[in-house]
Amino acid sequence: MRYRNIPSETIRRLPIYLRALHILKRQNKTTISSSGLSEIVAVNSWQVRKDFSYFGAFGKRGSGYDIDELAKQISKILKLHTRHRVALVGVGNLGSAVLAYPGFEPYGFDIVAAYDSDPKKIGKKIHGITVENISELRGLRKDKIDLALIAVPESAAQQIAEQLVKAGVKGILNFSPRHIQVPKRIKVFTIDIAMDLARLPFYIA
Amino acid sequence: MRYRNIPSETIRRLPIYLRALHILKRQNKTTISSSGLSEIVAVNSWQVRKDFSYFGAFGKRGSGYDIDELAKQISKILKLHTRHRVALVGVGNLGSAVLAYPGFEPYGFDIVAAYDSDPKKIGKKIHGITVENISELRGLRKDKIDLALIAVPESAAQQIAEQLVKAGVKGILNFSPRHIQVPKRIKVFTIDIAMDLARLPFYIA
Repeated sequence: MRYRNIPSETIRRLPIYLRALHILKRQNKTTISSSGLSEIVAVNSWQVRKDFSYFGAFGKRGSGYDIDELAKQISKILKLHTRHRVALVGVGNLGSAVLAYPGFEPYGFDIVAAYDSDPKKIGKKIHGITVENISELRGLRKDKIDLALIAVPESAAQQIAEQLVKAGVKGILNFSPRHIQVPKRIKVFTIDIAMDLARLPFYIA
Repeated sequence: MRYRNIPSETIRRLPIYLRALHILKRQNKTTISSSGLSEIVAVNSWQVRKDFSYFGAFGKRGSGYDIDELAKQISKILKLHTRHRVALVGVGNLGSAVLAYPGFEPYGFDIVAAYDSDPKKIGKKIHGITVENISELRGLRKDKIDLALIAVPESAAQQIAEQLVKAGVKGILNFSPRHIQVPKRIKVFTIDIAMDLARLPFYIA
């Protein structure tokens, strides 16, 4: 089944629902109402119901959604039901923090390679991963790695992105505050922490 | 003027528009159409027009929106027209990366204080900021700091959040993969990089 007509804003919210469902499962809950889920994720309950209706998940009156079933469906839509191999490029402060980050596991991501250009870092093991020379990025293709995180300085980001695309990477999460240009078939999300901070002042008195 | 009825999803997009407008300004552009802006930010152009209509910004047929004027309006709505003093708690790898991050300036944020519990870090200057003892968090109030970034280990996040609230902080950006509970009047955004990564596989072939 292809889910072609799900709006991108719904796709954006699906991982948020999924995280909440993971937490509920850990609390041994088995069902959740749209309004219950709505409160956890801070999305209107009509929006929750609408988002789920795009892939035919309808809660039962009185008991709500089956948590296990819903989590499975969302994982499948997001293609998170198979594990993904991920490479990190740039093992500075941010990259090291990424390698130490415990939150990738529940989504099925394995960070299996890390690259840097600094001779002092190459060959060193950081949080269980041996840092490789950035000149070896081509190796990604034979390692079946299709996702990459870019945590290099702003000035190097575009060039690294181009090398990653050549090495067969199809999706990039970019931490540098630089807009990256890649062919249309490649998906890039840029994380800009300043932009997240920029949402706060609106809400404070 | 209070902008009470702007949907939270529109508020979420306003910093994205603002960043694009900053870039266009640097390129010496003076006007932009909704479809031009739509392409840069990857939001439907009808959605761009709808978002702007909430605060009465209407583009002119043929010439579009005045970039300067629009940026000013959005800054004002987001309360970014005055500068904000921000504290960082936790100067590990992630916190150090935050201190080095060049992207806060355009939004008017000044990171003016950094705290850690590690005696080896306290008193040290990192990217121009002297790390203070985490036991001194109370000092935030007299320093007129109302926003804080939490980059401490997951197990310490809740306790730090409570201390920040006591010290008068009203908005928190939380980098730990832990849900933080604070009084309703305090706004918390949690950045979960795994969740952003979880959006990528859907889009790759």
